[in-house]
Amino acid sequence: MTATMNLGQLSEFLGATLQGPAELEISGLATLQEAGPGQLSFLANPQYRKYLVDTQAAAVLLRAADAEGFSGNALLVPDPYLAYARISHLFDPKPKAVAGIHPSAVVAADAQVDASASVGPFVVIESGAVIGANVTLGAHCFIGARSVIGEGGWLAPRVTLYHDVRIGKRVVIQSGAVLGGEGFGFANEKGIWQKIAQIGGVTIGDDVEIGVNTAIDRGALADTRIGDGVKLDNQIQIAHNVQVGDHTAMAACVGISGSTKIGKHCTIAGGVGMVGHIDVCDNVFVSGMTMVTRSITEPGGYSSGTAMQTLADWRKSAARIRQLDDMAKRLQQVEKRVDAVTSGGQPSSDG
Amino acid sequence: MTATMNLGQLSEFLGATLQGPAELEISGLATLQEAGPGQLSFLANPQYRKYLVDTQAAAVLLRAADAEGFSGNALLVPDPYLAYARISHLFDPKPKAVAGIHPSAVVAADAQVDASASVGPFVVIESGAVIGANVTLGAHCFIGARSVIGEGGWLAPRVTLYHDVRIGKRVVIQSGAVLGGEGFGFANEKGIWQKIAQIGGVTIGDDVEIGVNTAIDRGALADTRIGDGVKLDNQIQIAHNVQVGDHTAMAACVGISGSTKIGKHCTIAGGVGMVGHIDVCDNVFVSGMTMVTRSITEPGGYSSGTAMQTLADWRKSAARIRQLDDMAKRLQQVEKRVDAVTSGGQPSSDG
Amino acid sequence: MTATMNLGQLSEFLGATLQGPAELEISGLATLQEAGPGQLSFLANPQYRKYLVDTQAAAVLLRAADAEGFSGNALLVPDPYLAYARISHLFDPKPKAVAGIHPSAVVAADAQVDASASVGPFVVIESGAVIGANVTLGAHCFIGARSVIGEGGWLAPRVTLYHDVRIGKRVVIQSGAVLGGEGFGFANEKGIWQKIAQIGGVTIGDDVEIGVNTAIDRGALADTRIGDGVKLDNQIQIAHNVQVGDHTAMAACVGISGSTKIGKHCTIAGGVGMVGHIDVCDNVFVSGMTMVTRSITEPGGYSSGTAMQTLADWRKSAARIRQLDDMAKRLQQVEKRVDAVTSGGQPSSDG
Repeated sequence: MTATMNLGQLSEFLGATLQGPAELEISGLATLQEAGPGQLSFLANPQYRKYLVDTQAAAVLLRAADAEGFSGNALLVPDPYLAYARISHLFDPKPKAVAGIHPSAVVAADAQVDASASVGPFVVIESGAVIGANVTLGAHCFIGARSVIGEGGWLAPRVTLYHDVRIGKRVVIQSGAVLGGEGFGFANEKGIWQKIAQIGGVTIGDDVEIGVNTAIDRGALADTRIGDGVKLDNQIQIAHNVQVGDHTAMAACVGISGSTKIGKHCTIAGGVGMVGHIDVCDNVFVSGMTMVTRSITEPGGYSSGTAMQTLADWRKSAARIRQLDDMAKRLQQVEKRVDAVTSGGQPSSDG
Repeated sequence: MTATMNLGQLSEFLGATLQGPAELEISGLATLQEAGPGQLSFLANPQYRKYLVDTQAAAVLLRAADAEGFSGNALLVPDPYLAYARISHLFDPKPKAVAGIHPSAVVAADAQVDASASVGPFVVIESGAVIGANVTLGAHCFIGARSVIGEGGWLAPRVTLYHDVRIGKRVVIQSGAVLGGEGFGFANEKGIWQKIAQIGGVTIGDDVEIGVNTAIDRGALADTRIGDGVKLDNQIQIAHNVQVGDHTAMAACVGISGSTKIGKHCTIAGGVGMVGHIDVCDNVFVSGMTMVTRSITEPGGYSSGTAMQTLADWRKSAARIRQLDDMAKRLQQVEKRVDAVTSGGQPSSDG
Repeated sequence: MTATMNLGQLSEFLGATLQGPAELEISGLATLQEAGPGQLSFLANPQYRKYLVDTQAAAVLLRAADAEGFSGNALLVPDPYLAYARISHLFDPKPKAVAGIHPSAVVAADAQVDASASVGPFVVIESGAVIGANVTLGAHCFIGARSVIGEGGWLAPRVTLYHDVRIGKRVVIQSGAVLGGEGFGFANEKGIWQKIAQIGGVTIGDDVEIGVNTAIDRGALADTRIGDGVKLDNQIQIAHNVQVGDHTAMAACVGISGSTKIGKHCTIAGGVGMVGHIDVCDNVFVSGMTMVTRSITEPGGYSSGTAMQTLADWRKSAARIRQLDDMAKRLQQVEKRVDAVTSGGQPSSDG
């Protein structure tokens, strides 16, 4: 499964400066602490520099500056983490699917499946769907009517696309993800919720990644839209009509409510929730578990929540927070009284 | 896929007052801003009234009051949003399943499947299960032993029901939902968790909707119960023994811990968590990401959490919250000292 | 499905002291309030003692101390909850799978499946996988290349294991769980996220339970590791490289970010989030929905968040929290002014 390459080949692949024997065989990747003979490592984060001297790695991806005084084998590159990212795919043990349709798959007569695509066991492809060149559909995938998967897409086993889901090129979707589920739309009639059919679809750009068990609902009228290069981690919820701008990344367990628009190059940390119908501009960072309750119009970092304490201290803080309004009023009162005593000197900041 | 109807037919379907030509063909639905020729739109929210004048919609669902001064085609109705909800199903491109059992399905000899039901590819129906009239089971559904699906149910592809899950009429379940999973029950024996078999089932009422990847665990002893008309969005977790009252709605990513009872007509916003073994009365609204740590006995709105700030301001607030108990004590002290100076005038609110 | 045993047999099974007729038939389990004739109940929590007098249960699991004055049938045991846990499996209506491979399953020629294992309909087992003795694979399970399931494992329908996932003995995995998904690893190159292949695997210990729709990602380089006896509830997210110590339990909707290490015998309540690259020591309890933002080095309880209030009160608190830094400064100022007036007596705690 895992390839073996020599250091010279890797150097050439990366355009790196080779420090060491070109014929040295590399059979895998590991961290500086865990690497053994035959394994290549990398130094990206300065705080791991201390592990460089004792590493058992056969060779290390290094910045030229970090290589000074390092006598081991190295590949010198401007960005070791990026070099590691590129090289990692050479050592990926993920099985490669073979072209062709598994005999157990159920493919509609009018679906188009490119001859170079791989369709796994028990896959269902419905009427009018289009599967592009070099697409892999893992076992148990379901591709709904008229859905389209662009070339080079890789769907893990058990991915579900409802009807009218349009996916760009080179999109990776992990197991359990569901695209095109019916958005949560109901009209309330005297206390009874009446379902609104969700007649829009889903449009996903190129080079998108969608994590395990992530859900992206179809639009109520128009499409829910995910831009190019967007990376969505596991267990994320994207409600109907949401729009996510290009190259935005979201960590796991994020929930985005309906009709919210998120800009480009945003980073949304794990567990963040966003209310519906708001706009978040480009280049926003939201810290973990923040509740975003209003539109954000300025780039930068945003947070909510309270810092962790021991249970005993937290109980005191939580009780005091409920007294805060009272405390604020008492503070104002005591300020006035001190003002009176000191004949009006030093006004308070809100007085 | 999408129907075409004329304005007169739609007017009759809704019992609306027709303003415009009955023979005008309507081929779809869209918002006021996005609608083009042939599309019907609606004005429900007053803040979108500004879009009415320039809309390209072929016709608009309107309240009579909003139609004053509007010269375009319209269907006048008392509740345009509800009218849109009803009409949306006429234009739903969702494929209709055909009656019958796909030859690849594995159906136990003693399972009962109504002749009008549709059973998709690779569906598994186990011993003693009962599938009602006009039920649709999408591809890859699994229906466990003795489980029952009432008439008119619609299960998307890849829905899993364990054994002894009883579902009412006209229930909609989205992909990836799991009903009847084994609840999280363990007895701790000297630090080791011993599993408790979950021998209860799940009972779901009529007209319930269950979202993508939502989990409803079976009861430990009796059934977990979901009332009539309950609407559950995506990625929700309902633990064992929970009871949810009729017509309560929960947005995505809500988690309800074991044995908690929720009343009727409640609205639980996204990301809310509830601890176990509490009671929430009817007509409660809980705002997004609130942690419900105690029973609620009065109808109304409830919240927890802190408002979003810029990262810099939030860091200050978070640090100050940890000092709150100290601040409260100092405030009390300073009040006493001022009392002393001013000879006991103006007592503080808790002094 | 459900067994019938008599009280004498149950007494013997538990090593209990029998109080009542050995031949009394027991056909099920129920709570004190809900039990009817033929059902066994238990009293574990003292607050339910009030239900003992009126229970209709045929017999009750009791501590000897609680049996004083109770004239009904009883099985006296040191730990009734634990006795109930053990006995619950005798009454579990869960269907038992039969050994053998369903003819619809697709099993690679070089996969090893023990003759005592049960492989359900539409299961896929890939090259080099090993399925141990008495393992049950429910319908629609996918077992990736070289993955190993130890003896006695029970996988519900529709569980997905990617390649190189190694699972210990007697592990229970609920529907929709995904083990070995590709971790969220990307290197940022001028605003574009470049995927890092996730070449590690997943290692799961013995006697682990994994809940519905829970995701455990494969490691980036080495394995993600879950210790022996760990219990994970539904909808949990375990990111790449995480390590969870033996006998730690996590309730639903927890999210653990990459490379975080959690100790042994920890209890993580529902909805907790942990940032990446931190260490949590043994015997830590984290309360519901807490955000763990730093390493924990002392055993004990930890919390964050604010207590629930009515919406009106909460709005005041939330506004005041944003004024906290200002309030703290004003408090300090007013203390200094009072100090000046009173000639420097009673210094404040931070002055």
